[in-house]
Amino acid sequence: MQLIKASQMDLEAMVRKIVEEKITGESPELKINGGLLMIPVGVSNRHVHLCRKDMDILFGEGYEMQPMKELSQKGFYSAKETVVVAGPKGAIPGVRLLGPMREHTQVELLASDKWILGLAPDIRESGTLADSPLLTIVGPKGTVLNNSGVMIAWRHIHMNSAEARLLGVNDGNYVKVQAVGNRAVIFDHVKVRLGDSFNTELHLDVDEANAAGVDNGDLVKILL
Amino acid sequence: MQLIKASQMDLEAMVRKIVEEKITGESPELKINGGLLMIPVGVSNRHVHLCRKDMDILFGEGYEMQPMKELSQKGFYSAKETVVVAGPKGAIPGVRLLGPMREHTQVELLASDKWILGLAPDIRESGTLADSPLLTIVGPKGTVLNNSGVMIAWRHIHMNSAEARLLGVNDGNYVKVQAVGNRAVIFDHVKVRLGDSFNTELHLDVDEANAAGVDNGDLVKILL
Repeated sequence: MQLIKASQMDLEAMVRKIVEEKITGESPELKINGGLLMIPVGVSNRHVHLCRKDMDILFGEGYEMQPMKELSQKGFYSAKETVVVAGPKGAIPGVRLLGPMREHTQVELLASDKWILGLAPDIRESGTLADSPLLTIVGPKGTVLNNSGVMIAWRHIHMNSAEARLLGVNDGNYVKVQAVGNRAVIFDHVKVRLGDSFNTELHLDVDEANAAGVDNGDLVKILL
Repeated sequence: MQLIKASQMDLEAMVRKIVEEKITGESPELKINGGLLMIPVGVSNRHVHLCRKDMDILFGEGYEMQPMKELSQKGFYSAKETVVVAGPKGAIPGVRLLGPMREHTQVELLASDKWILGLAPDIRESGTLADSPLLTIVGPKGTVLNNSGVMIAWRHIHMNSAEARLLGVNDGNYVKVQAVGNRAVIFDHVKVRLGDSFNTELHLDVDEANAAGVDNGDLVKILL
């Protein structure tokens, strides 16, 4: 049993090595696998997802966001609308709303925003709402004192479920991702989220993208 | 000869492995070597080094900076004085001067500043002055149109020469540096600069520090 396991692992390692060596080549039969390891970057600035209730307070009863630009994930968009976010030390104007609306309001800030706002949000995964610092959101029709879901986003990959199966990656796995160039880095602890309709993409915030010298659409490599 | 080389390398690798394994332990005889691999971070915001001529124009003939805070490298300080830097798209106020004066003016910006200023500086090493974008520096007594030394700093380690000899690192070598935590990263292409009076330290800008979740004085590990 031990021997069988060992030889399976050897085979797997061998195949992986061959695939990796071929990524930069033109071998058509390996193009799909090679392509799966090289994924595009999507860069997020600070932004706000609003729930229906907060939208009503900030923009008026029944208000609907006006989509400005489609995002890479189907059905998601940045809106024309922006809000001001404010903490005990200062405020940041022009913070973009992303659509569609969510069940719970969530504010994703940059690490450097803590100095402007006087808050110390955790680095956490989207949807983790409890115990976040108090943040005031100001809109044209009203103000909300938000007491949940204020965070710095944990870096993550939206991965198409079918592609994930080919790579042997499961929902919630952590992988490393490598960016090349003057500011070459390997990002560790990158969480993978699977979705049948996801376009596979590494989501970084602007601090992370600046530190790695990458921009929207640049290709980075998953290290399995 | 080949055999001797191979066994020397094996020995070196073995010793390195033992040292690395012991870094987190309490073994007193390995404390020095372990300590050399774990180095503190120094975080820089955007800043300006002025030459005498530009100082005279911006602050008045013979003006001397007032030191505000000593930096980790002996003899270096941040000054009380700040300037405004401006490009074709916008300006940034409150940009700190660092002392002492230099032979040539040098402006170190953040990657995100390009969107504010409308400039595209290269990521390059300190002292590489040619072919940089035009930047206006505004002081209380005058304005300078700077045509050299506007850059985003290449990440680097100031390393004490004696420590570098123990590690086998030469001036100009590139090393990898690992930061742990939620935003764990491995920074590649980190240039090492040696100096007899240097306090060994990894210099990152605020974008890089934010992306890695590290702050002044946090320890990171050199991967040799």
